Amino acid sequence: MIVEIVSTGTELLLGQIVNTNAAYLARKLNSLGFHVLYQSTVGDNRERMTQVLATALARADIVITSGGLGPTQGDITKEVSAGLLNKPLILHGPSLERIRCFFQQRNLPMPDNNVRQAMVPEGAIVVENERGTAPGVILEEGEKTIIHLPGPPHELEPMFERSIVPYLTRRFGEQGIIVSRVLRTYGIGESALEVKIRDFILNQSNPTIALLARNGEIHVRLTAKGASAMEANELITRLEMQLRQYIDQYIFGKDEESLEIVVGRLLQEKGMTLALAESCTGGLVSSRITDVPGSSIYLTGSIVCYSNQIKIDSVGVPAEILERYGAVSKETAYYMAQGIRGKFRTDLGVGITGIAGPGGATATKPVGLVYIAVDGPAGCDCQEYRFFGERTGIKHRTALAALNQLRLYVGR
Amino acid sequence: MIVEIVSTGTELLLGQIVNTNAAYLARKLNSLGFHVLYQSTVGDNRERMTQVLATALARADIVITSGGLGPTQGDITKEVSAGLLNKPLILHGPSLERIRCFFQQRNLPMPDNNVRQAMVPEGAIVVENERGTAPGVILEEGEKTIIHLPGPPHELEPMFERSIVPYLTRRFGEQGIIVSRVLRTYGIGESALEVKIRDFILNQSNPTIALLARNGEIHVRLTAKGASAMEANELITRLEMQLRQYIDQYIFGKDEESLEIVVGRLLQEKGMTLALAESCTGGLVSSRITDVPGSSIYLTGSIVCYSNQIKIDSVGVPAEILERYGAVSKETAYYMAQGIRGKFRTDLGVGITGIAGPGGATATKPVGLVYIAVDGPAGCDCQEYRFFGERTGIKHRTALAALNQLRLYVGR
Repeated sequence: MIVEIVSTGTELLLGQIVNTNAAYLARKLNSLGFHVLYQSTVGDNRERMTQVLATALARADIVITSGGLGPTQGDITKEVSAGLLNKPLILHGPSLERIRCFFQQRNLPMPDNNVRQAMVPEGAIVVENERGTAPGVILEEGEKTIIHLPGPPHELEPMFERSIVPYLTRRFGEQGIIVSRVLRTYGIGESALEVKIRDFILNQSNPTIALLARNGEIHVRLTAKGASAMEANELITRLEMQLRQYIDQYIFGKDEESLEIVVGRLLQEKGMTLALAESCTGGLVSSRITDVPGSSIYLTGSIVCYSNQIKIDSVGVPAEILERYGAVSKETAYYMAQGIRGKFRTDLGVGITGIAGPGGATATKPVGLVYIAVDGPAGCDCQEYRFFGERTGIKHRTALAALNQLRLYVGR
Repeated sequence: MIVEIVSTGTELLLGQIVNTNAAYLARKLNSLGFHVLYQSTVGDNRERMTQVLATALARADIVITSGGLGPTQGDITKEVSAGLLNKPLILHGPSLERIRCFFQQRNLPMPDNNVRQAMVPEGAIVVENERGTAPGVILEEGEKTIIHLPGPPHELEPMFERSIVPYLTRRFGEQGIIVSRVLRTYGIGESALEVKIRDFILNQSNPTIALLARNGEIHVRLTAKGASAMEANELITRLEMQLRQYIDQYIFGKDEESLEIVVGRLLQEKGMTLALAESCTGGLVSSRITDVPGSSIYLTGSIVCYSNQIKIDSVGVPAEILERYGAVSKETAYYMAQGIRGKFRTDLGVGITGIAGPGGATATKPVGLVYIAVDGPAGCDCQEYRFFGERTGIKHRTALAALNQLRLYVGR
C-alpha cells in the first residue's frame, strides 16, 4: 500500500514551523508496514491544494493530509477534497454537538465560524477529536482513500493512534509486521557511539540500525520485519543483546522511557524520597521529575535558590562557603545537596549550581561550568561539567546530567 | 519567482528525521521575496525522484533540492537531474582537489567512492562546500534553475547563505522586501479572535494576516511586501494600530517576546522582586522565568512544595487551612503566595496549586482545577482555572496562566 502524506498550511511554506507531523505519520505508517513514498506540502490555496491532492491520489493508494480543518477562512482542506470528488459538504450533527459541548465545558460562547468544523463531505467517515474541535475525516473513493487529520500534533497524534490505525488495519489488513525498539543512551556522542557498533551498522539488514541524536541523547533504533510480532521482537532482542556488549553502560532506557521516568521507577523500587536545590536550572529538573504521573510519591519538594541569601537562609549553605568558594563551586553544590536533604528530611538531596550565561562568567569560571551533587545514604557524589551553547541549551543539558547522575546513584 | 523545495532521502520518508532543511530554506527564501509554493519529499529512488523533479520543474521557476550528494550508492540526486536534462556527468577537477585536501587535513585515506562527489552535470556551476566534501551544484536550463544542496544542515546553511543567496540576487535581482511581525496574544481562542478582526482578514492583501495557534497562545502574523524595509514596516504598523482597536487587551508581546520576557521587563521597570511557591507546576514557572538572561535580578527564588508538609514548614501555609479547604483551594493558593512573599522577603509572591492529573481528582475537584494567587503591594489577586488535557499539557497551560496573571498584576 503506497501512502502520500500531504501537509497543508502556509506557515509551513513560510518556514515558520518545522513539519513534525509528516515525520510522525511517516514513522507510524512505516511501522505498520505501509510504504510512504511521497510527502508534499502546499499552502491554503484552493487551486494549488486541488492540484497537489489530485497528483497524490494518482500515485498513492492512501493520501493522508494534516492541517486546514480549523474554523477560520484559511482552513479549506475539506472543501478542496469535496470539490475534487464532486461531493457536497453536509452538516454532521454529532460533531456540531461535540463542538458545542467543547465550548460549554469551558464556559465560552461558541463562535458561529466553528460550525464550519462540523461540515464534512457527503459519505465521509467522521473521526472524533478527543483534544479539539476539528473532527477528522475519512473518504473512500473506490480503491483510493483520503484521510484528513487536524494540524496540531496534540490532536493529530491521539486521533491517528486511536482511530486511524484501527481503521487502516481493518480496511487493508496486516501489511506484514514491522517492530521498532529504541535504545536510549546518554553520555556518549553520535560518532563515538557509531564507532563502537560500526560492524553491526555496516552489516545491517534485518533488523536495521539507525542512530538518531535527540535533545542531548543518542537513540539507537532497531527495526525488524517479521511474519509475526513475536518473530520481529526476537530478532530485535537478539541484536540488542549483541549491541549491549559494546554500549550497555550508556543505555538508560527504551522507547518512551525518559530519564525522569527511569529515575522515578528506581526511586519507587528503593522506596526513596527526593528533594532538590536548584540554582542555574531554575526549577527545570524538578519540573521534569514532576512531568511523571505519581511523582508526588517520591518528590517531596525543591528550592530554587537563585539568590545567595536563599542558599544560606532556606537551604543552609554556610555563608563562609559561598564566600570562600563562590556560589558556583563543588563545595556549594555539596552543601546545597546536603542542606536540602536535611531540610526536607528526604533520603536523597540534589544540589545544582552553575553559570547558564550569557552573563556571570569570570576568568576562572566560564559560562557552562556546572557542579551537580547527589547526597544520600551512600555519601555525596559531586561532579563537575562544562557545557556549551546558549542559556536554555545549557539548562537543558544540565537537567539531563542531573537526572543521569541521580539515576546512577540510585541504581547502584 | 516561484520556488519548489525538494527534499531527498529515505530517512525522511521513514520519519527517522524531521525535515528542518525545508523550513530553513523556506524561511530564507521568503525573506528574500521568493514565493515558496511547494515542498516535496522523495526517497533515494531514480524513477520516483525523476518524476518528482520533473513535476517541480513544470510548476516552479527555481527548484532547490537537499540531500543525495554524498559518496554512497544511495546518493543519486545529481545523476537524476543530469538524466532529466540529458547532460553527462563530468569530473570537476577543483572539487576532487578539495575533497583530497579534506581527507589529508584529517590524516585520513580518501575512499575511492568520494570521487563520485566531484562528478557534476556538464555546464553546471559548482559551489564550494566549506564544511564537507559534497560540492553544491547550480544548473541553468533556459528560464528554469535547479540548485542541489547537501543534506547536513551544517553544510547546507552556510552554503546557502554565502553562495546561493548572492547567486539568486545576481540572477533574479531584488524580489522586493518582505517583512513579518507577529502579535502574540493570550486569553482568547483562535476562532473568537478571528471573529473580532474578521473584516481585516477577509479584506487582506498587503499586509497579509495569518492566525496561528502556538502552545496555548494565538499569534497574529502580519506580513507586508514593500520596495524598502521601511515601507513594509510602515504598512505593518498601520495595520497593527487598526487591529489593536479590537484585540489590544489580548496582545502581550511581539515576535520573540514570550510571556516570561515581558514579565521580566515589567519587573525590572518597576524594580520589583519575585518569589514563587509552585505545587502542581513543579517548578515549571520558575524555570521559564529563569530562561530569560538576567532573571536573577528579579527572581529571588522559589519553593516547589509538592508535599503538604513542605507547604506548612517551608512556605508557611497554616495546617488548618490545608485541613479545612484542602491543598487545591483558593485559600491555600492565597497563603502560598503570601507565605513565600514573606519568607523570601520579595515584593511579589505567587502561589500555584492544582490537580495536574491523571490521579488526584475528587468528586468536587476535577483534574485541571487550578488556583493561582499573586500577592503584592496591591493586595492578593487569586484566580480559579479549569484546564483540560493530559498532565504536561495542564502544567504548560497553568504556567502560561500564571505568567499572564503576573503580567497583568505588575503591569497595572
